[in-house]
Amino acid sequence: MQVSEGEADAMGAQPAPVRRLRADHARQVADLLRHQIHAGAFERALPSEQVLAAEYAASRNTVREALALLRDEGLIERAPKIGTRVARRKVDHGLDELLGLQETLKGHGTVRNEVRVATHRTPPPAVARRLALAPGERVVHVERLRYLADLPLSLDLTYLSPDIGAEVLTHDLENTDIFVLIEQIAGCSLGSADLALESVAADPHTATTLDIPAGAPLLMLERLTRLDDGRPVDLEYIRMRGDRITMRGSLSRSNPEWRVRQ
Amino acid sequence: MQVSEGEADAMGAQPAPVRRLRADHARQVADLLRHQIHAGAFERALPSEQVLAAEYAASRNTVREALALLRDEGLIERAPKIGTRVARRKVDHGLDELLGLQETLKGHGTVRNEVRVATHRTPPPAVARRLALAPGERVVHVERLRYLADLPLSLDLTYLSPDIGAEVLTHDLENTDIFVLIEQIAGCSLGSADLALESVAADPHTATTLDIPAGAPLLMLERLTRLDDGRPVDLEYIRMRGDRITMRGSLSRSNPEWRVRQ
Repeated sequence: MQVSEGEADAMGAQPAPVRRLRADHARQVADLLRHQIHAGAFERALPSEQVLAAEYAASRNTVREALALLRDEGLIERAPKIGTRVARRKVDHGLDELLGLQETLKGHGTVRNEVRVATHRTPPPAVARRLALAPGERVVHVERLRYLADLPLSLDLTYLSPDIGAEVLTHDLENTDIFVLIEQIAGCSLGSADLALESVAADPHTATTLDIPAGAPLLMLERLTRLDDGRPVDLEYIRMRGDRITMRGSLSRSNPEWRVRQ
Repeated sequence: MQVSEGEADAMGAQPAPVRRLRADHARQVADLLRHQIHAGAFERALPSEQVLAAEYAASRNTVREALALLRDEGLIERAPKIGTRVARRKVDHGLDELLGLQETLKGHGTVRNEVRVATHRTPPPAVARRLALAPGERVVHVERLRYLADLPLSLDLTYLSPDIGAEVLTHDLENTDIFVLIEQIAGCSLGSADLALESVAADPHTATTLDIPAGAPLLMLERLTRLDDGRPVDLEYIRMRGDRITMRGSLSRSNPEWRVRQ
């Protein structure tokens, strides 16, 4: 099943299995480099192709293909003479506890929110159900385009319970996380949230709004957040630019199969 | 800032702000419908445009635009006379505890693994460091294309510590999660894992392998898993088809700002 790189390159004509092998190998190298870039292993410049080839025991063609993958993702820039440089390190969004954007990105720069919509409206039944509202109750609907260090980061659609939402609208939405405002207004802590994370392609209008090409990958987060007492108060649909955010956390093995099987 | 749908549609000529408004509104409707589709609210057929327009207080043009977004994501199919139907419900991958694919997808169908690579190799330094290996120690490298109900779901690259990896290779990798094998071999439970989740576009070779168009959105999971005693044994790079998987979990507010501020 395995052909060594050297043999593959020596084949010259490169039939399909060899191209496949190189693509597989390039992906492996790209994944490891991606981690190193995120972890800050390279100040700015990446090592030369030759050095990377030695480090990864790969041919220079494979290294070049791996770097092309990362360039296509927007992580690195390549230019003749200048070499390969880190174009952008993604920021880490915590996945271990419930945090607002400004809270989780502390130290990465200033979060600024462009408020595109902030209004009272009659919610569709699907929203009313999830926020456990009585028939006829209105919600507060907020749409924010969120910037980190003056680059668009995410487009957030928020539906808030009417009592809390009405007060939220009187505060500085441009510079404050809604989570923080909810806790101030409710006078208690948030409790827990249900979340769903998906990878979706940006539709043309979202892409224009977030300043990315149409079809670019987005991390899509749906989150229903409750107060400490369990009441759902905040339903959000957040489209994050895939080239700017990594969700990062840890998991534990809680009910391992092997114990069941012993 | 707000123009009602009715007014907007009545404008006829539809200058840019109206088109923007409709796109924003279509996105809101699409998000809510996406949730309903995932939650199984529709057995197979979606309600008519007219019914949806009434439910979401939207124009039929807006509903049509929302449905086009979901069709482009592959969630629904639309055909004249037949109407709108759910094309595919994504499967939920648990994000609350550390689980192998087969464990988390229990009840969704059979997971089958096509083993593309299973070999011993000298790891690049970046892998050796993360698995805390001594210089010169080899790793076991496994690459699997994973199917759920005979459709490709993910492409998994795995690096295993040599002692455990060597034994893993003697087992039935086609039908068993590596997590389960590690626990059998080590005779203890897995402990915790660090994970990073990103949204990336599929490179052409990965796309061919996973049977999706080049550039299609992937959920990319990097995961370093440790045994109960803290020893790292399993480093994985998992590319999941964005159109097939939702990561789903819950989060708690553990160290809320408002307490700090009181």
